[in-house]
Amino acid sequence: MAGVPEMIDPDSGTVRSSDELIQLLDGGDAAALVDYLHQLSGVELARIVSHLSPDEQVRFWTTLPAEQAADHIEELSTAQAAGVIEQLPVAHAAAILEELPSDERADVLNEIDEPTAEAVLARFPSEEAAWIRRLTEYDADVAGGLMITEFLAFPAHLTVGELIDELRAAPEDYSEYEVQYIYVVDDFGRLEGVLRLRDLLLTPNQVSISKIMLRAPVAVRDDTDLVRLERLFDHHPFLAIPVTDADGILLGVLRRFDVEEAVESRSGGEFLRSQGIVGGEELRSMPLRRRAGRRLSWLSVNILLNIAAASVIAAYQDTLAVAIALAVFLPIISDMSGCSGNQAVAVSIRELSLGLLLPRDYVRVWLKEITVGLINGAVLGLLLGLAAYLWKHNLYLSLVVTAAMAINTLIAVSIGGLIPLLLRRLRLDPALASGPLLTTVTDMCGFFLVLSLATMVLSRLA
Amino acid sequence: MAGVPEMIDPDSGTVRSSDELIQLLDGGDAAALVDYLHQLSGVELARIVSHLSPDEQVRFWTTLPAEQAADHIEELSTAQAAGVIEQLPVAHAAAILEELPSDERADVLNEIDEPTAEAVLARFPSEEAAWIRRLTEYDADVAGGLMITEFLAFPAHLTVGELIDELRAAPEDYSEYEVQYIYVVDDFGRLEGVLRLRDLLLTPNQVSISKIMLRAPVAVRDDTDLVRLERLFDHHPFLAIPVTDADGILLGVLRRFDVEEAVESRSGGEFLRSQGIVGGEELRSMPLRRRAGRRLSWLSVNILLNIAAASVIAAYQDTLAVAIALAVFLPIISDMSGCSGNQAVAVSIRELSLGLLLPRDYVRVWLKEITVGLINGAVLGLLLGLAAYLWKHNLYLSLVVTAAMAINTLIAVSIGGLIPLLLRRLRLDPALASGPLLTTVTDMCGFFLVLSLATMVLSRLA
Repeated sequence: MAGVPEMIDPDSGTVRSSDELIQLLDGGDAAALVDYLHQLSGVELARIVSHLSPDEQVRFWTTLPAEQAADHIEELSTAQAAGVIEQLPVAHAAAILEELPSDERADVLNEIDEPTAEAVLARFPSEEAAWIRRLTEYDADVAGGLMITEFLAFPAHLTVGELIDELRAAPEDYSEYEVQYIYVVDDFGRLEGVLRLRDLLLTPNQVSISKIMLRAPVAVRDDTDLVRLERLFDHHPFLAIPVTDADGILLGVLRRFDVEEAVESRSGGEFLRSQGIVGGEELRSMPLRRRAGRRLSWLSVNILLNIAAASVIAAYQDTLAVAIALAVFLPIISDMSGCSGNQAVAVSIRELSLGLLLPRDYVRVWLKEITVGLINGAVLGLLLGLAAYLWKHNLYLSLVVTAAMAINTLIAVSIGGLIPLLLRRLRLDPALASGPLLTTVTDMCGFFLVLSLATMVLSRLA
Repeated sequence: MAGVPEMIDPDSGTVRSSDELIQLLDGGDAAALVDYLHQLSGVELARIVSHLSPDEQVRFWTTLPAEQAADHIEELSTAQAAGVIEQLPVAHAAAILEELPSDERADVLNEIDEPTAEAVLARFPSEEAAWIRRLTEYDADVAGGLMITEFLAFPAHLTVGELIDELRAAPEDYSEYEVQYIYVVDDFGRLEGVLRLRDLLLTPNQVSISKIMLRAPVAVRDDTDLVRLERLFDHHPFLAIPVTDADGILLGVLRRFDVEEAVESRSGGEFLRSQGIVGGEELRSMPLRRRAGRRLSWLSVNILLNIAAASVIAAYQDTLAVAIALAVFLPIISDMSGCSGNQAVAVSIRELSLGLLLPRDYVRVWLKEITVGLINGAVLGLLLGLAAYLWKHNLYLSLVVTAAMAINTLIAVSIGGLIPLLLRRLRLDPALASGPLLTTVTDMCGFFLVLSLATMVLSRLA
């Protein structure tokens, strides 16, 4: 089809590299550079830019006119955009930020480090800086932080024909807007109603817009959080919802896809945190110090938890010395219990974010988990016991291993299922803390079970 | 504000339980039940329904009229909706599916087991069944599987006024549609152009729609996959894109938020798979056999990998018997390397899904990872070596532990960074297989490093 744009296959041989871009930079021809950029998709640009060295990045973004630079920065993720802005001279950074839409500007300013943000804000006229600062003060995942401040609002006394004439009188003023709805406000800017475009189309010209507007429309306060926003859009088919302050003054418009994007970015964040990437998104284009430091801050907590868990083994050195074969089963049982527990953690986190679970549903979760844990613990215990028997032909070793594996699986799924509920109740992030807490407890219990059971039948293991 | 709906705080005391619903069911008053359901949000309903027993579920859904049942089933996740439909008598299941929108019906039919799906389809008139089957044949994450088949299409010869009159002549026909764009087609149903509602509003009545329609509009073939669709919406600000077959015949409309939802559901799936929930979403309302079986299929692969890794320890029993303290460090080093490697896995998966990384970018990823690995490996190695020294006052033990931890961190971040690229290149799912492959290799290397280094200085460890 003629209308289908050429898409780049990520695995094909036709991918552009950053070399071409660097040649254009060396050539110094800003117009050729702008032309070249028009051929790139947002993702391609993001990838190519992330492969530039810090120096090349600065040259690239300062060569582009601010308006063009802003258009392209808009297509990057917030983390990447913030990385770019931080590297630029303050004057350039401010010029580019001025061209960004209000919500993206606030996101970027929130992500860059404090001194840079202050230096950039100092370049704006004080009134504008105050307004930007107000938008920046919203958390990125409340209505005020997600809304756009571009919207159409008219007084209620117009007719359909008058409103359409007003729009047609200056189409260029409105054609940039992503118009879904037209809002109706009173003299103080308070929201009175919402007009859908299709109702304007379907209604004769002489009818007053107050007749067809939806009164007492669904609106949200600027401080409404993402979980509630998600439910609201889940419950209503609207494409956008107006955002007001506590007095009902219309501040902006929250679009469905901004909420979907925020939810998707929350999912991505949950995934990263569950794998130990903490303190914000990591991109490999970020400075080495930040990447190593953030990962290490997490690992250094973890190594302490690990040392604590392994101290159980240290306490049972005498048992181990008699039955050295046990050392083979310690990591197996601790790792397998960790896996079983992580499965339970994942289901709890998922059910919590789908709203299927309340933080107080302890009993339900526990009952559902121990039934699974009984079956899986028995199967895994018998498998491992069989392996032990085939290796050493010692029934007691086999029994110790089977019992420890089965019991520890029960412990792991119970703790794994419940920890996310407890953390949510304490208003902590389940994706971040569940894993390490779980594995510390299951490691300790696993080591203790193997070694204490073994101690009881030690004479039979030697 | 009057317009803000009452939201339920998940942590507050005002949450409804399933008891109320069961009482209404026992009362047998269908009208009271329908009234009650109108008070619930989609998430509340999903939660309450998931807490019903299988019998209560069947009673609930068969008490409701099919149309109301479909409205409520639409608000559930596909996994939960499929679970409901599977439990119902076939006649009821078919009646409810008939009332679902085409895309949701296809999703549910794809998720339920084959025999039930066939039995349900057999209830539809053969022509309708064939059409449903065609939609069902699309994968859930290609354009055909995500599109809705409700759209407005008109011939190009109309004027703006004629088109508006036609819409106004039968507004009730269109008011159910989520109209974003109006499509212009030729006599064969081939897509010719797209009209935006705002252009209709902003253009005088006598102008022909062919003058204001966007020609050669961006459209996608029905078999376009989610990665490409995501990029397309990333690159273009459209709210919806028409979907055609290979001949350009307009088949349906793909809305931005359907793509966002599919992306979010992919993220959720990645998270679940990375934690060992494999074979589809798990909800605790699913049958025990399916839950235990799916988790176990994963765990049983894992236990084999674990036994393989631990066999390295078995090979070094003699070394361990001499220096039993080593047994304490084996799980620490294997677990910490797993953590470091998982961090690298997460960043690679994230960069792959953001499009910042191509599966061929091996060298870049490896260079970025070993620099981090050198720093973090050194820090962790020294920390653990210090702990060893404080415990046993044996410098050689401390050196063995430090070297093993540092080298294994390097190995872990290298493998962790590269495995997702390799798996993507092999068209396997990185979120699923990266973790177990990584930990098996890092466990083996970790055990080998500790025990072989220890063997070299064994006389100093005793």
